[in-house]
Amino acid sequence: MAESDLQAPQNALLQTLEHLGEGTALAQQIFDMIGHSKFFADFTREDIQRLTAFMHIYRAEAAQMIIREGDVDDYMLLIIQGRVEIVKIDSHGHLQPMTTVGPGATLGEMSMIDGEPRFATCMALEPTTFAVLSRDSMVQIILEEPGLGAKVLVKLVTLLSQRLRQTSSSLLHYMER
Amino acid sequence: MAESDLQAPQNALLQTLEHLGEGTALAQQIFDMIGHSKFFADFTREDIQRLTAFMHIYRAEAAQMIIREGDVDDYMLLIIQGRVEIVKIDSHGHLQPMTTVGPGATLGEMSMIDGEPRFATCMALEPTTFAVLSRDSMVQIILEEPGLGAKVLVKLVTLLSQRLRQTSSSLLHYMER
Repeated sequence: MAESDLQAPQNALLQTLEHLGEGTALAQQIFDMIGHSKFFADFTREDIQRLTAFMHIYRAEAAQMIIREGDVDDYMLLIIQGRVEIVKIDSHGHLQPMTTVGPGATLGEMSMIDGEPRFATCMALEPTTFAVLSRDSMVQIILEEPGLGAKVLVKLVTLLSQRLRQTSSSLLHYMER
Repeated sequence: MAESDLQAPQNALLQTLEHLGEGTALAQQIFDMIGHSKFFADFTREDIQRLTAFMHIYRAEAAQMIIREGDVDDYMLLIIQGRVEIVKIDSHGHLQPMTTVGPGATLGEMSMIDGEPRFATCMALEPTTFAVLSRDSMVQIILEEPGLGAKVLVKLVTLLSQRLRQTSSSLLHYMER
């Protein structure tokens, strides 16, 4: 694939944010960050170089929204720099803070894969740079670079497994009360 | 891969159950069952034929254990016939029933992928036939049939996403109380 074939994802919310260009521009920075990132822990420099060719980089200012609960869109993102709070509206109509994440964390994998509406809202707490991988790009990776595609998918399954274990444990803990 | 190269998974618990042979023997039955199975919903007959060549079939009697909480092993299973209860020991040392599943359900994907100890126990409620896919077989599928491997992985990510959404919603519900 020629890199120029890759369109930036079309999304109303992303269009309110600063688009810094294709991921390759920040491949070095992403590579320097992998020490902090569970996601990239066993990717080689070449894997990352190839993967970033399928990503776009954005920057959000403090208090800008990156993902909005209920939206139907289909990208995941990798935080390169900054801090993001995840919040969800509870059944009483109040914002319930869920967790805060930083460089190396991934967000939005669930909707990227299953296409269901966003489960929660992600808000930048400080100027935040992140790489976006859309569903279309994921499909392209699987078709054009199946080995790399499998590596990304195995990583996603592992991440989701770990999150499901944690969430199920917390749920059980609350159910026992 | 010659099918005869595929060893049945070595596992103490599986060895207490009746081994019915390689998955290909039950390919037709698995194919007939896909109407009930989220997992196989968009697999072609040929996909299933190829996938079952990497699986082994077992049968458990009522009240036999299929997966034991805390065990370190690395296979997932697909229920072909029967009914299985999932239970977990809570912090007071009591068995907490979690859910009951039937034909088409998959179990144990988390440990197959992340290699962490089993999160819960799975017990047959009636005579139950199931197909086993080990981590080694999954690796072989990815290497030898990357297209099929990607299809299985996308399916796993989708399943885990959906389960994570449900579990997170339940957790939020309990946290709000």
